[in-house]
Amino acid sequence: MTGSLDFAGWTRDRLGRVEAALSGWVDVGGPAGLGEAMRYAVLDGGKRLRPLLVLAAAEAVGGHEGAAMRAACSVELIHAYSLVHDDLPCMDNDVLRRGKPTVHVKFGEAQALLAGDALQALAFELLAPEGDVVPVAVQASLCRLLAKAAGAHGMAGGQAIDLASVGRSLTEDELRHMHRLKTGALLQGSVMMGAACGRASASSSAALARYGAALGLAFQVVDDILDVTADSQTLGKTAGKDAEQDKPTYVSLLGLERSREHARELLADALGALDASGLEDTRALRALARMVVERDN
Amino acid sequence: MTGSLDFAGWTRDRLGRVEAALSGWVDVGGPAGLGEAMRYAVLDGGKRLRPLLVLAAAEAVGGHEGAAMRAACSVELIHAYSLVHDDLPCMDNDVLRRGKPTVHVKFGEAQALLAGDALQALAFELLAPEGDVVPVAVQASLCRLLAKAAGAHGMAGGQAIDLASVGRSLTEDELRHMHRLKTGALLQGSVMMGAACGRASASSSAALARYGAALGLAFQVVDDILDVTADSQTLGKTAGKDAEQDKPTYVSLLGLERSREHARELLADALGALDASGLEDTRALRALARMVVERDN
Repeated sequence: MTGSLDFAGWTRDRLGRVEAALSGWVDVGGPAGLGEAMRYAVLDGGKRLRPLLVLAAAEAVGGHEGAAMRAACSVELIHAYSLVHDDLPCMDNDVLRRGKPTVHVKFGEAQALLAGDALQALAFELLAPEGDVVPVAVQASLCRLLAKAAGAHGMAGGQAIDLASVGRSLTEDELRHMHRLKTGALLQGSVMMGAACGRASASSSAALARYGAALGLAFQVVDDILDVTADSQTLGKTAGKDAEQDKPTYVSLLGLERSREHARELLADALGALDASGLEDTRALRALARMVVERDN
Repeated sequence: MTGSLDFAGWTRDRLGRVEAALSGWVDVGGPAGLGEAMRYAVLDGGKRLRPLLVLAAAEAVGGHEGAAMRAACSVELIHAYSLVHDDLPCMDNDVLRRGKPTVHVKFGEAQALLAGDALQALAFELLAPEGDVVPVAVQASLCRLLAKAAGAHGMAGGQAIDLASVGRSLTEDELRHMHRLKTGALLQGSVMMGAACGRASASSSAALARYGAALGLAFQVVDDILDVTADSQTLGKTAGKDAEQDKPTYVSLLGLERSREHARELLADALGALDASGLEDTRALRALARMVVERDN
């Protein structure tokens, strides 16, 4: 398909459905205020980039719609739990997130810890519904992809490298490795989970993996740029934290101009992968990659 | 089968296989020391009650052996992560576990948080292996059962109730509800995951669910008794913490003698459920229930 996509309309529709699904699944009925803390962590905030990537990839491969919406919500739950834990005093000790007090500020540290833990469990629960709502082979693939993206060789491992890197100088290779795990694994995982909702050929899958890897890294490069160039209000979180905490970033390593250039190169790589994917309609995936690089928060 | 089971031999064999499997799966290769912290949290300690329940239930229903070992290890990983997070300063702030410094004492709070998070992800990763090592329908069932047992309406929810209960007086119903979630859900879940590795009839499944529920509650009643009657060295953790923290327990609610009687009643209920299960060989499950009630640590 070569016609232009109404991306704003596409996004509005998909976001509406994601929000409704998340609101239905993250129920307030969790005991002793736990459900409330989980909802606070998940609802009414966030750009929902990961769910949109899942849905766009699933649509590109003609994937199972019910599976795609579950996968979309599951990656957002993992993302949300990681932010809750990341904001805790023993980690980044951040008090502001999406312009609101962080979960531990609002509900206490212990409840925040548990809410994060329960959100991770819920993510997997969504992927394995009772009955035949989703084909069991798809359920199993989605669980595998999510677990790998979230675990020690994915997001959690990236955070461990991040912890160990504060105050150290990293080479560009080391920085890239950290980000491939810390944010890249779940972003690429989102794309691959979308693809797993349908039947992508091996070459289409490989192209989507390359797209996801480039987009994941671009996301982080732009994050590092925004930490320097944007203010806290636009970001909805505390700006300038990386420099303050002496964390290695693309900007500290490459400088601002070279970082911007690198983001553009990664965007070109992501779009090139889609060109080579053999998939008919990759317009939403293309628009999402542009959005990641051109965003201002 | 009515002959007696060499339970010591059965346990030795199964424990050996569980330890070997855990050691293989919790690899030291997790980046920036994360793998080391994960291994420390999981290996060389613990009674492995949950894995043994999985294996005994799977054997009772003639379940898939490879699936059963994965399920056995996955419940232990969830248990291990819950202990790591539970010991953190913002929760129970405990420094001794299984006679060793707790994970955050040894590796720092941030690493302990991440190790727990990564262990939860790894639990699900084990359940969804690539290829056809385990039938995909079994993979999906195991992921569903584990997610429910670990989440807001299972273990994490029970911990939230526990948090909210400190310094409050609970009725026996409220205390039971807390424990059904906090420890009962994963113990019962272990039994049901074992059953899901094979084909149990609806009535056998219901009987195993009753067995798991009674055993789960008995476990907690005995835990409360031991917190009062055993010393820290025998327990391998700090004794007397519940009373010190003014936590409601069976002993504080019912007294020591009535608590012991209640544990015996629950054991009888668990064994009665097995009698009614229609399963041929429930000897290991019976012996495990006795072990739970008659243990001294």
